Amino acid sequence: MELTALDKAQLNAFYEECKAAYAAYQAQGLKLDMSRGKPAPAQLDLSAGLLDAVTSEEMLGEAGDYRNYGLLDGIPEAKKLFAPMLGVEEDEMFIFGNASLQAMYLTISYAYSHGLMGNTPWNKLEKVKFLCPVPGYDRHFKITEFFGAEMINIPMNEDGPDMDLVERLVAEDAAVKGIWCVPQYANPTGISYSDEVVRRMAALKPAAPDFRVFWDNAYCIHHLCDNPKTILPILAEAKKAGNADMVYLFASTAKVTFAGAGVAVMAASKANLADLSKALNVFTISFDKMNQMRHVKYFGGKFENVLAHMEKHRALIQPKFEVVLNTLDKELKPLGIGNWVTPQGGYFVSFDAPQGCAKRIVQLCKEAGVVLTGAGATFPYGVDPEDRNIRIAPTYPEVDELQTAMDLFVLCAKMAAAEKLLAE
Amino acid sequence: MELTALDKAQLNAFYEECKAAYAAYQAQGLKLDMSRGKPAPAQLDLSAGLLDAVTSEEMLGEAGDYRNYGLLDGIPEAKKLFAPMLGVEEDEMFIFGNASLQAMYLTISYAYSHGLMGNTPWNKLEKVKFLCPVPGYDRHFKITEFFGAEMINIPMNEDGPDMDLVERLVAEDAAVKGIWCVPQYANPTGISYSDEVVRRMAALKPAAPDFRVFWDNAYCIHHLCDNPKTILPILAEAKKAGNADMVYLFASTAKVTFAGAGVAVMAASKANLADLSKALNVFTISFDKMNQMRHVKYFGGKFENVLAHMEKHRALIQPKFEVVLNTLDKELKPLGIGNWVTPQGGYFVSFDAPQGCAKRIVQLCKEAGVVLTGAGATFPYGVDPEDRNIRIAPTYPEVDELQTAMDLFVLCAKMAAAEKLLAE
Repeated sequence: MELTALDKAQLNAFYEECKAAYAAYQAQGLKLDMSRGKPAPAQLDLSAGLLDAVTSEEMLGEAGDYRNYGLLDGIPEAKKLFAPMLGVEEDEMFIFGNASLQAMYLTISYAYSHGLMGNTPWNKLEKVKFLCPVPGYDRHFKITEFFGAEMINIPMNEDGPDMDLVERLVAEDAAVKGIWCVPQYANPTGISYSDEVVRRMAALKPAAPDFRVFWDNAYCIHHLCDNPKTILPILAEAKKAGNADMVYLFASTAKVTFAGAGVAVMAASKANLADLSKALNVFTISFDKMNQMRHVKYFGGKFENVLAHMEKHRALIQPKFEVVLNTLDKELKPLGIGNWVTPQGGYFVSFDAPQGCAKRIVQLCKEAGVVLTGAGATFPYGVDPEDRNIRIAPTYPEVDELQTAMDLFVLCAKMAAAEKLLAE
Repeated sequence: MELTALDKAQLNAFYEECKAAYAAYQAQGLKLDMSRGKPAPAQLDLSAGLLDAVTSEEMLGEAGDYRNYGLLDGIPEAKKLFAPMLGVEEDEMFIFGNASLQAMYLTISYAYSHGLMGNTPWNKLEKVKFLCPVPGYDRHFKITEFFGAEMINIPMNEDGPDMDLVERLVAEDAAVKGIWCVPQYANPTGISYSDEVVRRMAALKPAAPDFRVFWDNAYCIHHLCDNPKTILPILAEAKKAGNADMVYLFASTAKVTFAGAGVAVMAASKANLADLSKALNVFTISFDKMNQMRHVKYFGGKFENVLAHMEKHRALIQPKFEVVLNTLDKELKPLGIGNWVTPQGGYFVSFDAPQGCAKRIVQLCKEAGVVLTGAGATFPYGVDPEDRNIRIAPTYPEVDELQTAMDLFVLCAKMAAAEKLLAE
């Protein structure tokens, strides 16, 4: 029976029952942190071999001695390994350091200080706007906030951002300089962009010559299903549409090997790479090529081995996603509380609470010892206009801890939903 | 006999003799690159053990699992290891990624876009000036040039920059926002700042509240002498002078372990670190802590082991410095061509040619197959007003190659000097 079908007395009884259960949780003194999408120790153990994948001799690669300075754009072996991951050519890539976020920051920072491809630097413009499909990734939004862009929420449909709105805003306003996209297994919704959405994104007709699609394909190989569908390669599609210079692609092995010690990859047209090189040449002499080579050797230089490695991750994390989804299905669906989508991959389950309830749920969880990602974090400026979205990150806790946390979570969702109805 | 003492006929004969020798070099088809201060393969071999210094289990450190996200400021074990290198407290440090240059770029970039500690961002100012002791490090100058600062040459004395001039410019002009310093074994002159220079630098009375000393102590443990003198710790001196927030310190293990895969360190007052964290928190989740731990384990967590390791570098590179200095002493000193200082450490020998001869020497070397650092590179904008300075980087070539290159170098110096005299 749905919660909204209960009369006041039934609702009060339901709420009192929840409160008693909640008090019992509080007495347990739980201490669980589910605030970030972190891999579990067992996932990190999968890549233990990376630590002794190389010897000094193996640092002599195709393009020289990788222990020394040089090769700002990365080692050719790593380009070969990761080109299929992003669906680009090897000469359309930079291999970076340990975090793709740094590549995104540097790109935006360069747009701010110098301007992209000779266009006016952001700091000389009255106004810069950035499109932000929501809910989305808080660290993306922090970068554009830091550099003063006005962020505009774009609703997410089941096949990607609302492209009607994106097309209109991009075409009519030259202040719109970019859009953040996590196209496959979006953070946090888990949805993947349809072929149509990718094609429309690639064929945008921006008013601003320096408009860029920031295509963060962080989860492109993080499948949680059999026979996964790979989304269309955006750079190839953009070329077809005459928009080769309109897209930047990003990815990393942060959630493939080690979270803080992976290898980040960026791809773009050769003209864009040449442009960004102006900043990168000043920023550093080279990134850590030894860690690049470590990855190449560990995966035997073959992308299919990376994919096989991801199957091991899937085996470890799929049961955790099932705990989350089964608990939501069992406890909240019959009561009609909230909405969620079963993700086919990625790192999150995105839970939409009844309107106005997200903050309260997060607060209740926290007061009983379970820390979730802050409500609102998935929106620009940390403001969820409907106070609905909560990002659930299942990977880090052990299965039994996660079950406890989810039991508490659904209880808090029930309480918040009941409180709302009681207050109406 | 000095070259200037020769009469025209003698000079002509001397020049013709040089030209014949030069033609013989050209016929050899040499191909040597001495353009950068790169460690030789044998130096890199010294750190081979770094590659298997750690196992997965050893990634569980004092502050958690270093394979995962977190610890933006670096692992405590690395702070402990490197604090004595910079003469700072452990809570006055950031441990970065693979290159201290990136830390410098990020700091200047932050000053440009946001301003330091609430001061006006550079991009909102009419004019920003930066003091550049010359000759100096080209990559420092590139950063300040990239962010639009007007660079002012500061002459170097034998004990450091001309402090009378520095004090005056800093005190009278609020547009002066910083100074680049390589205080120990300066790049390229090899001189070290005296205690008096360090104390005067620490006690500057800048007109600009956001004036900073960029103290790049890249060669602080790269000794080429017995009983080396360590320069005064600038942060401690700045505190004594009430200038705790006026200095940023940088160093790295780029020339201790692996040139592209070392660990970079930054130090500053806690107030400065808190300020810079605003940018770093947006830039990345964390740097590569596994490489930090690799360094900690390889050196057994003890700074004295780092120093012992540097003695092995010295054993490899000192003979190369001797080749350079002996050849200059033997071939150029009797002729009175050029000036140089015997460095007590660092990576370079700085050669001052007769005025107007540096470009010609570099060109002659190049046309006979030896690439040197471009003449002018050691000055802001690549412009050496007297066209005198050439940075000689002895570390990379083998001793016999280096001898060949230096034989050619002194020959080219003789030719350029003779050409100048003949043209007078």
